[in-house]
Amino acid sequence: MMKHKKAISDAVIERLPLYYRDLLLLKDAGIDIISSERLGERLGITPEQIRKDLTCFGAFGKKGVGYYVNELCQQIVEIIGLQQHWKVGIAGIGHLGWALANYKTFERLGFRTTGLFDVDHRIIGQNVGGVIVTPIADMAAVIAREGIQIGIITTPAAVAQQVADEMVKAGIKGILSFAPLRLTVPDNIFVFREDLSIGLSRISYYLTNCSGKAMTDADRT
Amino acid sequence: MMKHKKAISDAVIERLPLYYRDLLLLKDAGIDIISSERLGERLGITPEQIRKDLTCFGAFGKKGVGYYVNELCQQIVEIIGLQQHWKVGIAGIGHLGWALANYKTFERLGFRTTGLFDVDHRIIGQNVGGVIVTPIADMAAVIAREGIQIGIITTPAAVAQQVADEMVKAGIKGILSFAPLRLTVPDNIFVFREDLSIGLSRISYYLTNCSGKAMTDADRT
Repeated sequence: MMKHKKAISDAVIERLPLYYRDLLLLKDAGIDIISSERLGERLGITPEQIRKDLTCFGAFGKKGVGYYVNELCQQIVEIIGLQQHWKVGIAGIGHLGWALANYKTFERLGFRTTGLFDVDHRIIGQNVGGVIVTPIADMAAVIAREGIQIGIITTPAAVAQQVADEMVKAGIKGILSFAPLRLTVPDNIFVFREDLSIGLSRISYYLTNCSGKAMTDADRT
Repeated sequence: MMKHKKAISDAVIERLPLYYRDLLLLKDAGIDIISSERLGERLGITPEQIRKDLTCFGAFGKKGVGYYVNELCQQIVEIIGLQQHWKVGIAGIGHLGWALANYKTFERLGFRTTGLFDVDHRIIGQNVGGVIVTPIADMAAVIAREGIQIGIITTPAAVAQQVADEMVKAGIKGILSFAPLRLTVPDNIFVFREDLSIGLSRISYYLTNCSGKAMTDADRT
């Protein structure tokens, strides 16, 4: 694993998967070298920002030529830790859980969903994106059997803490939660909370305060 | 509208809706004043960060007492522009669109979903969260009739650009896109792209690089 001298900022960490996904597309297309200008055009990020981000972890490219696609992919894989091929379990197979279970980008990045859990008997037993939904009562057993390291919680808020407790007890190390409340977990467990309303609030902010001006910075594409 | 002397960073803009939602809960509970320490505990954000964020837009609170909940709510509403009561339309009522149409926080923040659009005849005509799904062919007419200003795109990537073009032609000013591609829109239109894999990538990064260390910074709750 690479050693990082400096801590990498959250903003850079959020952009790395965007770079990575696009680099994979370039690789598939047989492209070996890409300039920061061209990559920037594809992603809607300025070439300066890209060069700054990539310098953070020691990817310098070749002056006047560009970045080697393969090498850069490999570096990003190591930084994000995607070489681990994380196994993921999703608790709560409502519409959002269902959408996530079928979310192609997870697989593209190396996340494999190998457990789906719910309490609803109409959903248990169904095949969602190639995985059979099992009763949440069996969650701990499936997590142990499959070696699932990351849990996604899309249950109602009222049961999210209980689900998180069970995930932690079963050996989960990181949790991505869509439930609108703060989860209490031991210090060695990583929790990241997604909030789908942040994007809309950002649009509201920009429409209110920056009308008539292009929003290239906030467009993460 | 408030005038901002300095540009507010994206990170602050992303935290504002989190503050706002929690302040609404405090308001509902009849709490008039909250300290940055107590607010920090509830949200998992350090009191220093909260004070710094709120100082950005001139909310200073009362030393040794705290912030006035009502006043702070009102300030955040004005900053984000939520007093506008934005109307929202969602194109693509698959599982993700369905989940978003029922996402309670949107309404709590003042976003009203008044248009749902799809091409699938099994979905058209259904009542999803109180709104009837209409054919995407009627989208422009519904956007004009309802005065919808913000569009959410959850369609397959292959049709997302076409949907965005039609939204823009119909008068939409901001687009939140879940489609995994860069949308091309006129300069005066705001596009913000959501990527559900960023949270997982962040967890992978922290599990790989910071194991055994608590992740309070990355826990946006």
